[in-house]
Amino acid sequence: MTSVEEAIQLIRENAIKPEIVKVPLSQALGKILCEPLTADRDFPPFHRVTMDGIAIAHADFASGQRSFPISGVGAAGVAQQTLSQPGSCLEIMTGAMLPTGTDTVIRYEDLRIEDQIAILEIDTLKKGQNIHRQGEDRRQGEIIVPAGRRISAAEIGVAATVGKSELEVYRPLTALILSSGDELVEVAQTPLPHQIRRSNNYSIQALLQGWGLEVEMAHVADDQAATERLLAEQLPKHDVLLLSGGVSKGKFDYIPAALEALGVQKSFHRVAQRPGKPFWFGRIPGGTVVFALPGNPVSTFVCTTVYFQDWLMTSWDIQHPRPKAQLTKDVHFHPDLNYYLQVRLHWNDEGRLLAEPVEGHGSGDLANLTDADAFLMLPRGSDLFLKGETFPVWPFRP
Amino acid sequence: MTSVEEAIQLIRENAIKPEIVKVPLSQALGKILCEPLTADRDFPPFHRVTMDGIAIAHADFASGQRSFPISGVGAAGVAQQTLSQPGSCLEIMTGAMLPTGTDTVIRYEDLRIEDQIAILEIDTLKKGQNIHRQGEDRRQGEIIVPAGRRISAAEIGVAATVGKSELEVYRPLTALILSSGDELVEVAQTPLPHQIRRSNNYSIQALLQGWGLEVEMAHVADDQAATERLLAEQLPKHDVLLLSGGVSKGKFDYIPAALEALGVQKSFHRVAQRPGKPFWFGRIPGGTVVFALPGNPVSTFVCTTVYFQDWLMTSWDIQHPRPKAQLTKDVHFHPDLNYYLQVRLHWNDEGRLLAEPVEGHGSGDLANLTDADAFLMLPRGSDLFLKGETFPVWPFRP
Repeated sequence: MTSVEEAIQLIRENAIKPEIVKVPLSQALGKILCEPLTADRDFPPFHRVTMDGIAIAHADFASGQRSFPISGVGAAGVAQQTLSQPGSCLEIMTGAMLPTGTDTVIRYEDLRIEDQIAILEIDTLKKGQNIHRQGEDRRQGEIIVPAGRRISAAEIGVAATVGKSELEVYRPLTALILSSGDELVEVAQTPLPHQIRRSNNYSIQALLQGWGLEVEMAHVADDQAATERLLAEQLPKHDVLLLSGGVSKGKFDYIPAALEALGVQKSFHRVAQRPGKPFWFGRIPGGTVVFALPGNPVSTFVCTTVYFQDWLMTSWDIQHPRPKAQLTKDVHFHPDLNYYLQVRLHWNDEGRLLAEPVEGHGSGDLANLTDADAFLMLPRGSDLFLKGETFPVWPFRP
Repeated sequence: MTSVEEAIQLIRENAIKPEIVKVPLSQALGKILCEPLTADRDFPPFHRVTMDGIAIAHADFASGQRSFPISGVGAAGVAQQTLSQPGSCLEIMTGAMLPTGTDTVIRYEDLRIEDQIAILEIDTLKKGQNIHRQGEDRRQGEIIVPAGRRISAAEIGVAATVGKSELEVYRPLTALILSSGDELVEVAQTPLPHQIRRSNNYSIQALLQGWGLEVEMAHVADDQAATERLLAEQLPKHDVLLLSGGVSKGKFDYIPAALEALGVQKSFHRVAQRPGKPFWFGRIPGGTVVFALPGNPVSTFVCTTVYFQDWLMTSWDIQHPRPKAQLTKDVHFHPDLNYYLQVRLHWNDEGRLLAEPVEGHGSGDLANLTDADAFLMLPRGSDLFLKGETFPVWPFRP
């Protein structure tokens, strides 16, 4: 049986390197930036006025002047103005270029205007105030955002500012979710007493949608020939297959044999964990990656949340620091296995994330997942986990 | 000037109540569930075998029997079997109905099979083991998920199981993002020295996409008539307008006057905060809601993250507990304003969220946002915030 640490290591070794494509800004959110964002001009590109008011030469104020005839108005979006009459001022708006001959901006709140004369109502001001100086944030040519980051609204704003209407990103990975099990019927059907409806494929689909994958679904009967036929047809079409069911020791669990017959090389089968022990993982050398997950709904959910997510982040080549949370009560767990405990998350007033156990009735208890927010990983090697101890956590809610 | 608390209160009072629509499961992730998910059968619907192996009557084992002739095989997805020959066993697979006449399942790992006889390799077993009993998780008719929750992959799985191929959810809200400012040019253009490229509309779009809104964008020149014309045309078409720029005290800031002329009732203008003080908020009574945000990029970003998000969650009628994070160093801030400090987030080993200040050069410093993950709110009333103190935090990364 493979340890959780070995399983993670093997999964990371089988990360893929997606091709780079260009997408419009409006489709870039959540994708991985594959080019640096470089300042095409200084940031800001000119001495930019940051308050609505008047621009003056500070020397006039320093020499005692408190009233300034208004010799013109400068709006944002017009060419730079010039203060041509010494001792006067220009009305000036936020976002405008600072007029030539001025060096200080006084906001409307600090003056009154009578007969086209601005009269100051303050007696101190700082030379250069209310100006965002050219190049103060970044210099032309400087890298603002390095490649290799997951794109948030902040990177989108910077990309727009430096003139990138398209961004180089990894193309969305494509996944096939393949369910098996003759007991499964479609959602819209009414099951016979010995049947249940398909659900794992929808849960996995939702998890993958949250990470931006392009997902297709298929189902195959518990039949070796049919399983091999479908796998042979589908394996070449996708970056990754996620199979649910058919990997245990049952007489009708054809999946591992069918995969290996088709050239998928096994990395491991069975991981020292609960739930999800029968997990099988492999890859066609240089090609499609296969996560063959146990059919129990909580097992499938945990393995997708923990292992598939790790594989994806490694394929994206990004850091994904793992949050930690503190147990709110003692938990006993005797098997010599890593235990992915279902927990509800809370924040306390000291900025600590608390994990309240919401244990259900095992890996078949799908309903219990809806009471949880996350999985807390309790490592093997102990059978008692104390209130107040801290463990890594995998949240799964949007 | 309105306090941050009053502003939040007024925004919540202007939440809307979206209509309910049906969407297929594949489009339900992240939306708000508007109907309860009820168990249409017991969960599980029958005594479900949870291990591959054999099913026996425990009484036979209790009377000393350790070898069981195999009288048949029961797969998942076939009708319930019956153990017809007393003292024999049935091979049985995970997911199958427990056969009539049996009450205990022994997994293959605990036995060997020779000449169609299963010989146990264990000497203790628990009556009823390896069976997930009918109704153990939930009873038919029980509510599994109440209405009013944001849909995660867990709710999707339960919906599939109870036969919901479509779910009642709030329809996506529609937003128009309207930028103004004559200094702004399109992303693909090369700006003149006094111009900059439009970027706020793209940042806002990305934030709104993350929450599942349907977003359109438009731009209007700094011209009162044009502004009124465009607003008159667009206001009736959207649930919410987000305007960026034109709300300060500048001579060309037509937005508040134009909105009020068109029947948008002001709730507040100017909030005691930095950045984002000139923020204007109002609504056509019973109709379109308007967030008129200051044009500085960090101001727009903060107001969308904090206030628009709060309005949306209130309109969705869901709880949205605010994470808290701990300052990693002292911060001085003198103005009598709430301060939304840009921070980078880290987890420490005790499960605490740490906020490392990454202060930039003010509300115009868009580039600095790409070094941050979140805004930490430091409340007015103090000018020194100490390392180790904890404050609410608004993360903005996917």
